[in-house]
Amino acid sequence: LLPPSNKFLKAASAHRSQVWEEVRSAALKLSEEEPILAPMLTTTIIKQPSFSAALAYHLATLIETPTISADLWRDVIVDATAREPEINMLIEADLVAVMERDPACDNYLHVFLDFKGFLGLSLHRVSHWLWNQNRRGLAYNLQSRISQVFAIDIHPAAQIGKSVLMDHATGIVIGETAVVGDGCSLLHGVTLGGTGKEKGDRHPKLGKNVLIGTGVSVLGNITIGDGAKIGAGSVVLKSIPPGATAVGVPAKIVGKSIE
Amino acid sequence: LLPPSNKFLKAASAHRSQVWEEVRSAALKLSEEEPILAPMLTTTIIKQPSFSAALAYHLATLIETPTISADLWRDVIVDATAREPEINMLIEADLVAVMERDPACDNYLHVFLDFKGFLGLSLHRVSHWLWNQNRRGLAYNLQSRISQVFAIDIHPAAQIGKSVLMDHATGIVIGETAVVGDGCSLLHGVTLGGTGKEKGDRHPKLGKNVLIGTGVSVLGNITIGDGAKIGAGSVVLKSIPPGATAVGVPAKIVGKSIE
Amino acid sequence: LLPPSNKFLKAASAHRSQVWEEVRSAALKLSEEEPILAPMLTTTIIKQPSFSAALAYHLATLIETPTISADLWRDVIVDATAREPEINMLIEADLVAVMERDPACDNYLHVFLDFKGFLGLSLHRVSHWLWNQNRRGLAYNLQSRISQVFAIDIHPAAQIGKSVLMDHATGIVIGETAVVGDGCSLLHGVTLGGTGKEKGDRHPKLGKNVLIGTGVSVLGNITIGDGAKIGAGSVVLKSIPPGATAVGVPAKIVGKSIE
Repeated sequence: LLPPSNKFLKAASAHRSQVWEEVRSAALKLSEEEPILAPMLTTTIIKQPSFSAALAYHLATLIETPTISADLWRDVIVDATAREPEINMLIEADLVAVMERDPACDNYLHVFLDFKGFLGLSLHRVSHWLWNQNRRGLAYNLQSRISQVFAIDIHPAAQIGKSVLMDHATGIVIGETAVVGDGCSLLHGVTLGGTGKEKGDRHPKLGKNVLIGTGVSVLGNITIGDGAKIGAGSVVLKSIPPGATAVGVPAKIVGKSIE
Repeated sequence: LLPPSNKFLKAASAHRSQVWEEVRSAALKLSEEEPILAPMLTTTIIKQPSFSAALAYHLATLIETPTISADLWRDVIVDATAREPEINMLIEADLVAVMERDPACDNYLHVFLDFKGFLGLSLHRVSHWLWNQNRRGLAYNLQSRISQVFAIDIHPAAQIGKSVLMDHATGIVIGETAVVGDGCSLLHGVTLGGTGKEKGDRHPKLGKNVLIGTGVSVLGNITIGDGAKIGAGSVVLKSIPPGATAVGVPAKIVGKSIE
Repeated sequence: LLPPSNKFLKAASAHRSQVWEEVRSAALKLSEEEPILAPMLTTTIIKQPSFSAALAYHLATLIETPTISADLWRDVIVDATAREPEINMLIEADLVAVMERDPACDNYLHVFLDFKGFLGLSLHRVSHWLWNQNRRGLAYNLQSRISQVFAIDIHPAAQIGKSVLMDHATGIVIGETAVVGDGCSLLHGVTLGGTGKEKGDRHPKLGKNVLIGTGVSVLGNITIGDGAKIGAGSVVLKSIPPGATAVGVPAKIVGKSIE
C-alpha cells in the first residue's frame, strides 16, 4: 500500500470516459483469452452502455438472493445513481485511488471485477443515499448484504469521503456516526467503532489522507488528523494530531510525518 | 454497545408474542414502503404463522446451496425447534438482547432480517442441538455454512448461554470446549480458542454478562469472571476475576467494575 | 492446534488411495444416517471416480455464481490438476496436515466437506497455477471468489508450500511476494502483508513448520525462520530467527524452542 497522493482527484475528473474505455477494452481482450469468462464479461461489461450501467449490473449480481433478484437490486442502484450523479463520481474516484495506491493492482478491470473493498464501498454509497432518503429498511438490507458477501459492515449513515481505498477489506466495521475523509486508506480488519459508553455521536472522525493499518481499532468520538498514520494492530482511544504516526495497544504517537 | 442488564430476561418471557407482532407489523409497513422488499417480506414473515416458522424460513434461505435446498434446511430447523422448544426461547432472548444493548438498533425487524451475529447464533443453537443428538456430520455441515455465510465459526459443541449479543460478528471463532455465560456480549473478531498446547478441555469459560471487545483473543482453558470487561485488541492468557477490566497484549487487569 | 510434525509427509505419499477410501466410506455412512445430506454426498463424492474429481466438483459448486457456472469452474480445476499433478499431491498433504494438527478434527470427510482453510487453499493452488500460466485475469477472478466465499485473500502469485494448515481461516490475507514454507500453520486473521513503503519484493518469507497465531500481522520483506512461533495478536516487523518464539506489538523474542 503506497502513501496517498492528490493526483487521483485530478485524474478522476479528467479521465472519466477513459476509465470506462480501459475497462471495456480489457474486458474484450480477456473474453478472447478466457472463454470461461466470456459470458460474464459480455453481459456485465461489453454489452453495457456505460461504466455506471456495467457496475450496477455487476453489483446486483453479486448481492442477489433467492428472495431479492439481481434485476430488482439493479433497479435500486440505477435509480440511486440517476437521482444522485455524485455517487458515480465518488465510485470512479475510488477506482482510480485503488490503482494509484495498491502495488498489487495493475488494471482497472481487475479492480472493477474483483476488489471487495471497491465493490463493498460502491454499494455503501448507494445504501448511504437510501438512508438520506429516509428509506432505512432498504438501506439496512443492503448493509446486511454487503456484510454477508464482502465481510464489510458499514452503517448506512456513516459518511465516507471520495477516493477512499479499502484494501483486502475483510472484517472492516464502520459505525453509524463515523466520518472518513477524502483520500483515506483503510486496510482489512479496521474498526471505526464506539467505546460502548456513549450514545448518539460516538464514532471516530478521520481527516483527509489518513492511513489505517491492518487490524486497527479506533474507538470513540475522537479525531484522527489529516495525513496521520496508524500502525497495524493498534488500538486508538485518543485523538491523533494531523501528520502524526501512532502505534501500539493503546496507540502512542511515535513520529511526525513531514511529507 | 451498552452494558448488559437483566431486564431482557424478564422481557423475553413476558413479551414473546409481542416480539412477533412487532416484527410482523414492521414487515407489513416496510413492504408497503419498499416494493422491492415486498416479495421477500411476504414469503419470509407476513405469510408465516409464527416467529419460529418465519425465522426457520429466513435462515434456511440464507444458507441454502445448489446441493442442499432451503426446503431441506428448513425441515431440519423446524424439527430441531419442535423437539427442543428451548431453542426458540434462547433465540428470542438473543433478539431482545440485541435491541437492549446495541445503540445502532432501533427495531426487531432489522435484527431479525439483517444481523449476522443474531442469525449465525440462531443457527448455532440448531447445530448444537444436532451435536447433542449425535448427528455430528450434519452439525459440522451447518457450522461450515454459518462460517461461509456469516464469517462466524462456532464449534457445534460450544455452549452458549441465553441473551448473548454478537455485534457485527465477522471473524468470531469459538472453540469446541468453550462456554459463554448468559448475557455476554462479544464484538466482531473475538476468538475463544486454544493455546495449541492442550488437548481435551482446552477453551475459555466465560461467566455471565462478560463484555469482550473487538479483535480480542482469549486462549486456553481459563475463566473470565461474571461481569468482567476485556478491552479491544487484547490477548488474554490468564483467568480474569469477576467484575475486573483487563486490557493489553498480554492483557493486564486495569480496573474493577462496581456496577 | 498441535505443533507440526514430519509424519504427514510420509503419510501423504503412502496413503493417497487410503484417504480417498476413507472419505468415500464416511460419505456412504453419513448419507445413510442423514437423508438431507444424501443427494449432496452422492453427487459430490459417492458417484465420483477419484478424490481429485470429487474435490473439483465440490469446490466448483462452492464458488459458482449466476454468471460463471459450477460446470465451467469444474473444467478449470480438472484441467489444472490434469496438467500439473503436483496440485493434487499438495492438496492431499494439506488434508493430512489438518487431521494431524487440529484436535477438533476427527475425520477426513469433515475436512474435505467443511474446512474453509483447506478449501480456500486448494483453490489457491489452482489460481497459482493459472498465474504461472500467465492467465492472470482468471487467476484474479478465482482469488476474488475465494475471498468472497471463504474470507481468505491470497494473491495468486504467493508461494505456499506443502502440508499447510489454515485453521478457521476467516480474514487471512497473503500478499503477492509472500512465501509460506512446508508444514506451516496459520490461524485465522493472519496477515502476511507489506509495510506500504516498498514496491516489488515486499512480503514476508516463512520458513518450514512456522506457527502463526490468531490475528498476527507479519509485515515487510522479512524472514520468519524454520520452526518459529508467533503468539496471537502480535505485529512482526523484523525477521525472527529459526526456533524462536515472538510475541507482542511490536513482537519481541521471548523464547527459543528446542524441539
